[in-house]
Amino acid sequence: MSPASKAAAGEAAPPNFGDLLAAAGRLTGVARRTPLLEDPFLNEQAGRRVLVKAECLQKTGSFKFRGAWNRLSALQGEARIRGVVAFSSGNHAQGVAYAAHLQEMPAVIVMPKDAPAAKIGATRRYGAEVVLYDRLTEDRAAIARRFAEERGMTLVPPFEDPFIIAGQGTVGLEIAEQAHEAGATQAEVLVNASGGGLASGIALALAERAPGLTVRTVEPAGFDDWARSLEAGAIRTNHAVGGSIQDALMSPSPGLLPFAIGRRAFGPGLAVGDEEALRAMAVAFARLKIVLEPGGAASLAAALFRREALQGEAVVVVASGGNVDPALFARALASGA
Amino acid sequence: MSPASKAAAGEAAPPNFGDLLAAAGRLTGVARRTPLLEDPFLNEQAGRRVLVKAECLQKTGSFKFRGAWNRLSALQGEARIRGVVAFSSGNHAQGVAYAAHLQEMPAVIVMPKDAPAAKIGATRRYGAEVVLYDRLTEDRAAIARRFAEERGMTLVPPFEDPFIIAGQGTVGLEIAEQAHEAGATQAEVLVNASGGGLASGIALALAERAPGLTVRTVEPAGFDDWARSLEAGAIRTNHAVGGSIQDALMSPSPGLLPFAIGRRAFGPGLAVGDEEALRAMAVAFARLKIVLEPGGAASLAAALFRREALQGEAVVVVASGGNVDPALFARALASGA
Repeated sequence: MSPASKAAAGEAAPPNFGDLLAAAGRLTGVARRTPLLEDPFLNEQAGRRVLVKAECLQKTGSFKFRGAWNRLSALQGEARIRGVVAFSSGNHAQGVAYAAHLQEMPAVIVMPKDAPAAKIGATRRYGAEVVLYDRLTEDRAAIARRFAEERGMTLVPPFEDPFIIAGQGTVGLEIAEQAHEAGATQAEVLVNASGGGLASGIALALAERAPGLTVRTVEPAGFDDWARSLEAGAIRTNHAVGGSIQDALMSPSPGLLPFAIGRRAFGPGLAVGDEEALRAMAVAFARLKIVLEPGGAASLAAALFRREALQGEAVVVVASGGNVDPALFARALASGA
Repeated sequence: MSPASKAAAGEAAPPNFGDLLAAAGRLTGVARRTPLLEDPFLNEQAGRRVLVKAECLQKTGSFKFRGAWNRLSALQGEARIRGVVAFSSGNHAQGVAYAAHLQEMPAVIVMPKDAPAAKIGATRRYGAEVVLYDRLTEDRAAIARRFAEERGMTLVPPFEDPFIIAGQGTVGLEIAEQAHEAGATQAEVLVNASGGGLASGIALALAERAPGLTVRTVEPAGFDDWARSLEAGAIRTNHAVGGSIQDALMSPSPGLLPFAIGRRAFGPGLAVGDEEALRAMAVAFARLKIVLEPGGAASLAAALFRREALQGEAVVVVASGGNVDPALFARALASGA
């Protein structure tokens, strides 16, 4: 456990359902209510109904904008003038950068230098100061803390924060309504998991609003810290630190707050390979007309290629992000649907 | 004017606003209410606010499902058992095929043999019988009439029909509400035009619900029959019959019913080249995370590359379809945004 994690966990309790409703109020008219898409051929291919929550259509191209907006909205006075610092492989970076831009706060984003060019470029274009680091030799949390100390900036963690989890949880409030409208009241909800802020936030929403829906995490094969942690009942860490194209899902271990929620609420974890994620991107292109990044397509890949591991006549897939470089997307198209 | 056009125009008057509301009622809970997307970088690039109505996210990947569903819903008794026949380069084909499948009617679709493989394949998968013809040597209307005569099928024309126009016009009802919510009450609405069913339907909706919004047609360069017809005040025909990758926008001339509406309601027509459409597809990929086909991206291309020809601080772009083969999409990505 890193000192940052300890500190965050020491300071904060998991959010409750009221925190999610407060987040939803702050996000009304700001975040997009993304559609829940369904396609007959996709259902046929997956052997059950597949309802896809298209969070790639969210502002900044991923769900991360929700948590960032909610966290920044809670800052007061001097903290709003000093601004924020965050570390992220890319989607949280863009979410924080754009939320800071809209709320007129300075932002420093610490990003790995091997993050997709599209993510680094977009973060800069939102007006943030981008600081690059080496994923193998440098400690991003330490770099971020330096900015927090030297400039008085508030650290906006990617998942270890009740405001962040509550913001991401608004995805779950929407799923509860939209799945009900679609007639799916019993289903597994597949959520791409890195630290688990999105998955745990969604689980809080569903527990209250759609108790027949159960969250299951999806991770890259070889980076299945959530699956192993859930099975062990205690936090487990990945050995590898890079090497998957599912770059959004590279956190070394579940977050403490997300795990405190997820260990009771989640079903067993799932994992998919990079080639499966690429094929799911091609399916989403062909059938849903949406752009997914590899880490955003893992959940759809699980629906398509882990049929036997799933239960029920319907599955909800959270397609969490679409920030992918054109060359990699072209590779996905070439992989065929 | 083809005999089919004459017959259709002789039988039918343009729909009125009440017909649009009736169509909206039939489509509630059936068609998707597609989102109106906006992105800060896209606005910057276009020099004004760009609000993108993402009809590529509609069922079957284009707006055509709306008109088809509305037309088929109006059939009664024996006609529902005999089924329907349609001719189309692809999007109308899929719309009719899927609407017929859902309403449990047989469907024959007459398609050009050079239509994109994705469109032909999808039409077959929806359960329709596909009949291919040669765009240069055969008359698709005559082929369709033969099925109408021999099998008693009802011809579902792509645009020369008040039910079709009213169905497509429901896009306009949604735009009126969504643009108002976005604070855009004065704007040009750029609509990709082939026969003009979508553009004229939208114009009917806007005249009643958002009089500050004005429709302008967008066509492929060299196939600007709408632009020339609007300028002349009388219907003009394209000389070329093929050769643009904007295959959805290849109708030789404006439809009679659409022109009767559009000649008074539309602003001057616009045209964009194929390379511009490809670049707009790359922009939609990078910034909006949606998949557009060339003919579905023409309106966005006009917003990006005809800035000086547009008026006002905001423009609404109807991104009408996303049924594109992977190889062509990869070519768009390589063209760069």
